[in-house]
Amino acid sequence: MADILHRVGVKSSVAEVYAALTTIEGLAGWWTTNTTGEAGEIGGVTKFTFGPGGFDMKVLELDPGKRVLWEVVEGPDEWIGTHVIWDLDQVDDWAIIHFKHEGWKEPVEFMSHCSTKWAVFLLSLKSLIESGQGAPDPNDTPISNWH
Amino acid sequence: MADILHRVGVKSSVAEVYAALTTIEGLAGWWTTNTTGEAGEIGGVTKFTFGPGGFDMKVLELDPGKRVLWEVVEGPDEWIGTHVIWDLDQVDDWAIIHFKHEGWKEPVEFMSHCSTKWAVFLLSLKSLIESGQGAPDPNDTPISNWH
Repeated sequence: MADILHRVGVKSSVAEVYAALTTIEGLAGWWTTNTTGEAGEIGGVTKFTFGPGGFDMKVLELDPGKRVLWEVVEGPDEWIGTHVIWDLDQVDDWAIIHFKHEGWKEPVEFMSHCSTKWAVFLLSLKSLIESGQGAPDPNDTPISNWH
Repeated sequence: MADILHRVGVKSSVAEVYAALTTIEGLAGWWTTNTTGEAGEIGGVTKFTFGPGGFDMKVLELDPGKRVLWEVVEGPDEWIGTHVIWDLDQVDDWAIIHFKHEGWKEPVEFMSHCSTKWAVFLLSLKSLIESGQGAPDPNDTPISNWH
């Protein structure tokens, strides 16, 4: 098993970050504008659609201001069954995001791509909250021939 | 053991990326302006200095246009003895960088920070080559209270 890890700090309250992870409007502001479903209740499924495909995430855990945990229930084979975990921590005037995309069966090339791309989207989330403007798909920063 | 993985594509030849990894001028253009030492010969040590500290990298492998491998010989405890590996691959008009920072003893919080920060610097390297302008320290993108 292999995991993707990131740590980003947002100059905000954890409540603002939590809202951007648990509402359709928030998620559409930093990951993909084409986001539908139920992000704010346990058992709900959110559908994230991108140009080349997408991911369906089932909400397994919600702890307001502290933790959001999704299981991937639809998407690329390598993603199915993996968990995306958002642990939040207020440190002075920073909301610290401890991000983990865990449970990759193998550290394949696509995992390396997703690792870099998650960093780009985490910075989009940071920018959304700090400046009011994220860069969700289709306006995300391209990183390679895989976009 | 835990590894940081990234994949970035640069619209260039692998020779240009290789030069940005094996010359002081190249490295200073995307990672830190305060770079000194020997980056272009096996056994050479390059010293990368940042505001809060730095890293000394010993060159263990060089394969022009294909691979650069560094061992960390000075720096934060968590970095000492880890390897930073750059595998390059020409795919049409893209130089694909397969990046790995391997051998972390534990997936500590500092590793998550470094994972995100490596992504930021890889995009700085991409920008340096594609546009002539990178964002090395002290002009790098801040990602948190740890900068």
